[in-house]
Amino acid sequence: MTEKRSKKSQALRERLIDAAWRRIATVGLSGLTARELAAEANCALGSIYSAFDDLDQLAMYANLKSLGMLERCLVAAKTGRTGADALRSLGCAYARFAIENRLAWEALFDLRLLHPQPASADFVDAHSHLLSLITDALREIPVDTTPQDLSARSRTYFAAVHGIVSISLQGRFVGHPPERLEAEIDAFVTLLADGLAAEAGSARSPQQ
Amino acid sequence: MTEKRSKKSQALRERLIDAAWRRIATVGLSGLTARELAAEANCALGSIYSAFDDLDQLAMYANLKSLGMLERCLVAAKTGRTGADALRSLGCAYARFAIENRLAWEALFDLRLLHPQPASADFVDAHSHLLSLITDALREIPVDTTPQDLSARSRTYFAAVHGIVSISLQGRFVGHPPERLEAEIDAFVTLLADGLAAEAGSARSPQQ
Repeated sequence: MTEKRSKKSQALRERLIDAAWRRIATVGLSGLTARELAAEANCALGSIYSAFDDLDQLAMYANLKSLGMLERCLVAAKTGRTGADALRSLGCAYARFAIENRLAWEALFDLRLLHPQPASADFVDAHSHLLSLITDALREIPVDTTPQDLSARSRTYFAAVHGIVSISLQGRFVGHPPERLEAEIDAFVTLLADGLAAEAGSARSPQQ
Repeated sequence: MTEKRSKKSQALRERLIDAAWRRIATVGLSGLTARELAAEANCALGSIYSAFDDLDQLAMYANLKSLGMLERCLVAAKTGRTGADALRSLGCAYARFAIENRLAWEALFDLRLLHPQPASADFVDAHSHLLSLITDALREIPVDTTPQDLSARSRTYFAAVHGIVSISLQGRFVGHPPERLEAEIDAFVTLLADGLAAEAGSARSPQQ
């Protein structure tokens, strides 16, 4: 009986997460209201608060779903590629994901959800896994760095590509139009990879 | 008499812009309320709306003041430097400005002020001038690109550095702690410059 109830409450949680995700993806995080969610998930308003602490916590689980989708896109982009080629493909796939899932992607970086305490272990895991895709690609370029440096560099390159995508999709005049974005990211990541190869080359053959 | 009135209204505008800037720099854009501003600029509440269309317009002028400060920092950082050295110095100065003027810098990228119609010519001018500092530095590295490419690249590199600074200052675990930020930006811009030099080198001596 308890197990049945727990299964039922798990099903409700998942229905609510799906409903929240759809709402975020179509209207944006600001459109996430309890009333709309209850209607979409076909449950009582109070059920939301028995399943989650508050709407922010529910939004974080919806974000976790987005991170899962992003991860599948990135894994597919990296499959069969290594080094600079993999880096480029990851960068372009990130831009495409942001363009195609604009509002869900924006919600990932909403300041309101900056400190995801309740889901923080899951979040850190999901982000770490995404970053490890970059670290793996970097490891295939002969770079002369410690694992710690490699982790810092992965974060830097992610933030750089994210910055280009972000400023462009916000429609700022310092950005690029969406149809130019992938080509710009491609050229940019190529440049990073060329820089890494050049630095590795000069580290291997220092001036004597 | 008309001239006197116009001088007086110009003085009020400037007092209000200064007051708005101080308010944004100490409390943030969300703390910009008409009541607080009127008190700080020592004027009637209604005077704000005779001098500006609304608080968003006033905030945009305060942002223009921040852009002027940023420009002075960047010009100072570039003085006496060229090429890769200038690019590195510009990147580090940008990170420092963001750290030292955190809230005023954040307001520059607030979505609420995304489309600064009333001040748009001034804004585009200010941004163009900032970007030209990057373009000038790029021109000093022997890059094999058209002026149009150079402008696109300047915007890409700005957005990349901005992304690294931005994700780090938001305190995200994919970012870097503030005390590591300048060193990371330095290494990152060095890498970009190395990539540019490598690409220019291989363009000059193509495989035949």
